[in-house]
Amino acid sequence: MEKIIDLRDLLVHEILDLYSAEEQIIEALPNMIEKASNMELKEALSTHLEVTRRQKDRLDKIKKVMMGEKGTENDESFFATLFGDNASQKCKGTEGLIKEADKMLEENMSPATRDAAIIGAAQKVEHYEIAGYGTAKAYAIELNLEFVADELEKTLAEEYDADDLLTKLAVGKVNIASEHASA
Amino acid sequence: MEKIIDLRDLLVHEILDLYSAEEQIIEALPNMIEKASNMELKEALSTHLEVTRRQKDRLDKIKKVMMGEKGTENDESFFATLFGDNASQKCKGTEGLIKEADKMLEENMSPATRDAAIIGAAQKVEHYEIAGYGTAKAYAIELNLEFVADELEKTLAEEYDADDLLTKLAVGKVNIASEHASA
Repeated sequence: MEKIIDLRDLLVHEILDLYSAEEQIIEALPNMIEKASNMELKEALSTHLEVTRRQKDRLDKIKKVMMGEKGTENDESFFATLFGDNASQKCKGTEGLIKEADKMLEENMSPATRDAAIIGAAQKVEHYEIAGYGTAKAYAIELNLEFVADELEKTLAEEYDADDLLTKLAVGKVNIASEHASA
Repeated sequence: MEKIIDLRDLLVHEILDLYSAEEQIIEALPNMIEKASNMELKEALSTHLEVTRRQKDRLDKIKKVMMGEKGTENDESFFATLFGDNASQKCKGTEGLIKEADKMLEENMSPATRDAAIIGAAQKVEHYEIAGYGTAKAYAIELNLEFVADELEKTLAEEYDADDLLTKLAVGKVNIASEHASA
């Protein structure tokens, strides 16, 4: 069993969780893009796939910086130890969200309704990340890890933007089209 | 296989999903309350358990109103049919989030760190609901179901409040205590 003692351990745990989330999202998005009909939605999801890849790289950078971080006590190698041995963990939260999305995509739906469903599923994933990155950022600020907090904030802002864009697409176009979808 | 054709079906699907989410949260919260140490956190979660029960009742009310809703065409019994036969579905998203929280609570942690972890897990659940209720409300507005949209908005506002309260508790108290937790 992993041993989580203080906020530093919890930050590492959260970063590994988000790393797994990004990996799962990168794997899941192509199917959503393929199943989407509305061109703007396809484009928004494709752009988000690129953004997600960069977010994963950003987490790699954060991890690297943290491993080189010197503690104030004699715990110089603290983060290096925690991140060592290719530490990884599967994000069960994202796993559930993607299961839910996949199940939804198998349903018999009109194209416009499927678009609305894809947006709903994607926004649940966005909100998972908003909560996770928000939490990790708060830990980093508390631990005075300024660089880490700033990098996490970049992703957090991107997630809010992605969520807003999807809301605009849903409310302005996709839901309207879905309302008029016929059986 | 369920048949989802238009936005009305999708709204029913989303409401059944949120209903299952509320049920799972009501079941999961007592364990979080028990494992929490900070008294304010215990109280906040206990209050949220009461709020969650009312949110579930609110969904029952919504469902009832929708079943009595008359369509503009000859689909008078549309929602009644969809909600009929005690329709229910398990929310896989919440299931994953709670699995993740339960796994976290089994870890070896100091009390203050466990409190921080509980807040992080609870906020992920809040954000799932924020996404879900936000989506359902947008569908209801599009479908001119004013009462439904207003009721969903009430829960949405409560979820935002709960999320804000947890952020304040984390940033103002729990994370600080966790930083100083010793092994």
